[in-house]
Amino acid sequence: MEFLTGVKQQKVVEIADLTMKDMTGKTVWVRGIVHTIRDMGEVAFLILRKREGLLQCVLEKGENMTGEERLDEDSIREESAVEIEGVVRKEERAPYGFEIHIDRIKVLSVPAKGLPLPIAKPKLNTSLEAKLNHRPIALRNIRERAVFRIQEGIVRGFRDFLYSQGFTEIHTPKIGAKSAEGGANIFKLEYFHRPAILQQSPQFYKQMMVGVFDRVFETGPVFRAEKHNTKRHLNEYTSLDFEMGYIDGFEDIMAMETGFLQYMVALLERDYGNEVKRLGISLPDVDRIPQIRFDQAKQRVSEKYQRPIRNPYDLEPEEEMLIGRYIQEEYGSDFVFVTHYPSKKRPFYAMDDPEDVRFTLSFDLLYKGLEVTTGGQRIHDAKKLEEKMAERGIGTEGMEQYLSCFQCGMPPHGGLGIGLERLTMQLIGEENVREACLFPRDLGRLEP
Amino acid sequence: MEFLTGVKQQKVVEIADLTMKDMTGKTVWVRGIVHTIRDMGEVAFLILRKREGLLQCVLEKGENMTGEERLDEDSIREESAVEIEGVVRKEERAPYGFEIHIDRIKVLSVPAKGLPLPIAKPKLNTSLEAKLNHRPIALRNIRERAVFRIQEGIVRGFRDFLYSQGFTEIHTPKIGAKSAEGGANIFKLEYFHRPAILQQSPQFYKQMMVGVFDRVFETGPVFRAEKHNTKRHLNEYTSLDFEMGYIDGFEDIMAMETGFLQYMVALLERDYGNEVKRLGISLPDVDRIPQIRFDQAKQRVSEKYQRPIRNPYDLEPEEEMLIGRYIQEEYGSDFVFVTHYPSKKRPFYAMDDPEDVRFTLSFDLLYKGLEVTTGGQRIHDAKKLEEKMAERGIGTEGMEQYLSCFQCGMPPHGGLGIGLERLTMQLIGEENVREACLFPRDLGRLEP
Repeated sequence: MEFLTGVKQQKVVEIADLTMKDMTGKTVWVRGIVHTIRDMGEVAFLILRKREGLLQCVLEKGENMTGEERLDEDSIREESAVEIEGVVRKEERAPYGFEIHIDRIKVLSVPAKGLPLPIAKPKLNTSLEAKLNHRPIALRNIRERAVFRIQEGIVRGFRDFLYSQGFTEIHTPKIGAKSAEGGANIFKLEYFHRPAILQQSPQFYKQMMVGVFDRVFETGPVFRAEKHNTKRHLNEYTSLDFEMGYIDGFEDIMAMETGFLQYMVALLERDYGNEVKRLGISLPDVDRIPQIRFDQAKQRVSEKYQRPIRNPYDLEPEEEMLIGRYIQEEYGSDFVFVTHYPSKKRPFYAMDDPEDVRFTLSFDLLYKGLEVTTGGQRIHDAKKLEEKMAERGIGTEGMEQYLSCFQCGMPPHGGLGIGLERLTMQLIGEENVREACLFPRDLGRLEP
Repeated sequence: MEFLTGVKQQKVVEIADLTMKDMTGKTVWVRGIVHTIRDMGEVAFLILRKREGLLQCVLEKGENMTGEERLDEDSIREESAVEIEGVVRKEERAPYGFEIHIDRIKVLSVPAKGLPLPIAKPKLNTSLEAKLNHRPIALRNIRERAVFRIQEGIVRGFRDFLYSQGFTEIHTPKIGAKSAEGGANIFKLEYFHRPAILQQSPQFYKQMMVGVFDRVFETGPVFRAEKHNTKRHLNEYTSLDFEMGYIDGFEDIMAMETGFLQYMVALLERDYGNEVKRLGISLPDVDRIPQIRFDQAKQRVSEKYQRPIRNPYDLEPEEEMLIGRYIQEEYGSDFVFVTHYPSKKRPFYAMDDPEDVRFTLSFDLLYKGLEVTTGGQRIHDAKKLEEKMAERGIGTEGMEQYLSCFQCGMPPHGGLGIGLERLTMQLIGEENVREACLFPRDLGRLEP
């Protein structure tokens, strides 16, 4: 009987192994994709693409070469996967200050055709459309892929910070029954001969789970059948959601989000420095984030930029932009919490401000003028919730379980949802949210 | 202008704050749900339910009580949310060795009705059906909810271990185009007047991403329209997937999974000890996990338990059970890797064993006789992949992007998918996978 006893120590090394200590003069084995070949005659440079970056390998052509060491178009070409045995030598001009002098090359796989995009360039200067049409290939470009390392850091920071704050992670279903809430922006499907929908948010589930764990979070896909074909909308995106009980007010939620952003920035600085540098990101200062009332923000922007207020109850994308600009100019912050959104623009479960019920105890977080978070305090009293639903003509069908939680007792609570792709997009300074989504879904795009 | 500067230090303390150092004699503020009330006349015990556990609070009734300190049915009852101010006193018989002597109670919320289930009992002795019908309430039971803390530990362990092994986390779309692969077990929906499907696995995406990051993982929902109404099947579940490049063989994948299980067990021991104890779990020994060939396993089980082999190319659930029993009896392991599954039972992308192409370089991991993982090496050569598809009559429509990745070069690779709910179920020793899913989706259940 053979046994598995855990991860095997590999002969093959990674870039981290090579940079951790001086390996000069040692023979090593490395694997990777041939990113580029520069053949200079007697000497050829093979740049290996590995998950951590690019590794320079040098082939000095001699007499005692076997077949594979020759740069044969049929085996060693760009995008071939290879294993290289060679000696580490100091080389100031190479990416990490060293290069590998090749003794032997073993070919692991050979591509059947050339690439549809010139991915070896430092920056892909193709259209977004072309990149998305060849997405899995375009992502091999080291700048393109760096975006999604940054995205990993954001999600990782979100989870790790919330674990440290006593939150429990949950996984809630994405297929659900059709409920009276709903609306037009919901994808419908048939579920064993019953009508069903794809959840547009884990909202009801995370609220119900506050009664169980006090503080919960989820990172998962949400689905919106919105017919917006803008630079800011996706029809499927990753939502970073949390919900917390026993709050004193919705300021606690904004404070928690600020804490997350501080943690995230520190994590990106510490563990994702290469990608931050590659993308030329200047990480935002999140030591203190201004908060301003919705009506005040509208007023100030209207005055400063001579823009008449057309609708006092709504914020147009252009107004969001101007609020971002205003806060940057006046307070030097990329972020601003806009609070007290009008009741009529918030869902039924939002808690109205007892001091003025036309507004809610809620907020959006704008980042460089774009909404990246919506949150607020929720109604926790069953009777008030039922009244609000009745006022809005929302039936209780399909909402029985949700309402039952409140009837059985729920602490005061609130929470938020962060659009991962939007946050990533603003952080990396892109103009289109599709740049920050591995495989975007929009009105026209269902593949790859 | 006001600013948010991060998480606020709260006056209110959690159980961890109270157990970290001796607080005897100190006045503290705690919040929680009134789990039970035991009124003894002059003294009443209020057990507070908090996210970490139960906290004993004692009310000595005196003359100088205001309204709220009285145990008034209209305010302080089971499932009321309260804030208690009181003094910490040593008490051996209380859960953490101390209790809070109540000075003041502030009521935060009051339930409108009684509970549909007796959740305050240590163990809910209701049927699974009743528990699922009142799921968000049933989960308030401290044993029921402990299951999902364990589940958190599993997912957390999966991610943290894989981060440490150089994997990158990805988020791939759940809505996709209809492809030639497919099959009957796929949920269909309409996507802006085009036919679409819900992904039954991130398989193709994670393989494509191997060309980008070498090693990737995803934890997310998958959807299977299977009409199985068994104790082992869910129509939506959370899949823990990884895919890794540059493998020497499929043993590398089993070794990586073994490493994960070792990491997970250590994490559960360290950070989830309370829940492990509450559920009476004995954590499995995963120092070494036996591996056995599919055909050998069938043979040995047939011999030992006098069970004729009916179909040499398939493993019936009862046979899986017996293999689990066999391995436990012979080698004392709850886990076993069953390797070399027949080609005809594996998908087209599975790599055939060059030594006998009727079998594949693949495996299942059985845990106490139940399949919890399927994995293996994949075909990385474009031509071989196309041939295999042609053999099986699978068209290339909708597979262009997938195939293009292989044509453009892919390293040797493989991976696996773990069913989170199944792994949780076996770990906690439950009989029905629905016990290990917060809000299960099955043939009959679409809500809550």
